[in-house]
Amino acid sequence: MSLFRLDSSIRSQGSVSREVADTVERAYLQQHPHGTVVRRDLGADPLPADLWSTGALAGFTPEDQRTDAQRAAIARAAELADELLRADAAVISAPLYNFGVPQNLKTWIDTLINDPRFGPGTRPLDGRPVTLVVARGGGYGAGTPREGWDHATPYLERIFADVWGARVTVVAAELTLADVNPAMAELRPAAADSRAQAHELAEATGKALGAQAA
Amino acid sequence: MSLFRLDSSIRSQGSVSREVADTVERAYLQQHPHGTVVRRDLGADPLPADLWSTGALAGFTPEDQRTDAQRAAIARAAELADELLRADAAVISAPLYNFGVPQNLKTWIDTLINDPRFGPGTRPLDGRPVTLVVARGGGYGAGTPREGWDHATPYLERIFADVWGARVTVVAAELTLADVNPAMAELRPAAADSRAQAHELAEATGKALGAQAA
Repeated sequence: MSLFRLDSSIRSQGSVSREVADTVERAYLQQHPHGTVVRRDLGADPLPADLWSTGALAGFTPEDQRTDAQRAAIARAAELADELLRADAAVISAPLYNFGVPQNLKTWIDTLINDPRFGPGTRPLDGRPVTLVVARGGGYGAGTPREGWDHATPYLERIFADVWGARVTVVAAELTLADVNPAMAELRPAAADSRAQAHELAEATGKALGAQAA
Repeated sequence: MSLFRLDSSIRSQGSVSREVADTVERAYLQQHPHGTVVRRDLGADPLPADLWSTGALAGFTPEDQRTDAQRAAIARAAELADELLRADAAVISAPLYNFGVPQNLKTWIDTLINDPRFGPGTRPLDGRPVTLVVARGGGYGAGTPREGWDHATPYLERIFADVWGARVTVVAAELTLADVNPAMAELRPAAADSRAQAHELAEATGKALGAQAA
């Protein structure tokens, strides 16, 4: 049994998305004490800015005319695809950055799609359980002024569920900046609630990931 | 008078987003024959993958404790912010890549937000005219199976209009892959219509950009 874990927060300390993903991972391992966890940390080690574009342009070039850089980019995409496909389940953690997806995560998704197994018309994760852990600095709930301003979660659900076919569960923690932003001080109790709920759902989801994968 | 033009297509040849942006630029220059066009090509020259994250982490570090790399990242963000702020109008071209924003464009937006003039609570482009040129390989109109699958345009409108305060016009060309994808052959007339309409709107918008900026 193996779990693929990907983090995209650029912070190694104080990252709520990593902290909640830790809970998913811990609960998963409770189900599978001998399970393997394969990690990719896009925050610490982002893919190069031109990896995806080089590989995508290779797609317009007949195989025997590809440059060495294009061959290397396609080979790297295959390695990244293998890494995800080998896992029975996945947890993907992503902070909302400037109302959008972390650029390092978009680059990873685009790069995977350079591999034919993740290309148009495929469903490489068909039925596989994936937990998306999202951390949002503010509040984006229904009826709030920023309802609809989270442009990352719907996009990530689109790719993982609709395009790649995974069974996706979203675990979200909100108001994560309340602890450090004095202007949000009065939101701290709500932030603590949101975080506690996220950990609770993360725990349940991690166990379910393990059970579904078993 | 000056126009800032940014392109994010990874292709230099055959890019519909660049072609439609060319029309905007040409029409703008008809209004301002002595106008200046400042270009940034994120397709040919993407920003480094860690430029944004280095600058963002600098934001958590007191100024006198920042590393040389953090200072350099903040200085680069200021240069990129200057480049956009000096212009009276802007045209931003973006293909839809894998149902999302080009990662090179997200990196540029995030990097600008590292500059205090583009940070939270600012409206750096207040009232300034911005044309967003979008090219989509498929069809995403109301009632089509992929309605709602364009996760880039709403995000870009959010940043440029709602967050930065620009007056945004969207010019979109659809079905751009019909010419090269045999499975889309029957959509070629619709693709040609969409492209022609995009150029028409680009022409009118370019003139209006010039007139608004004047």
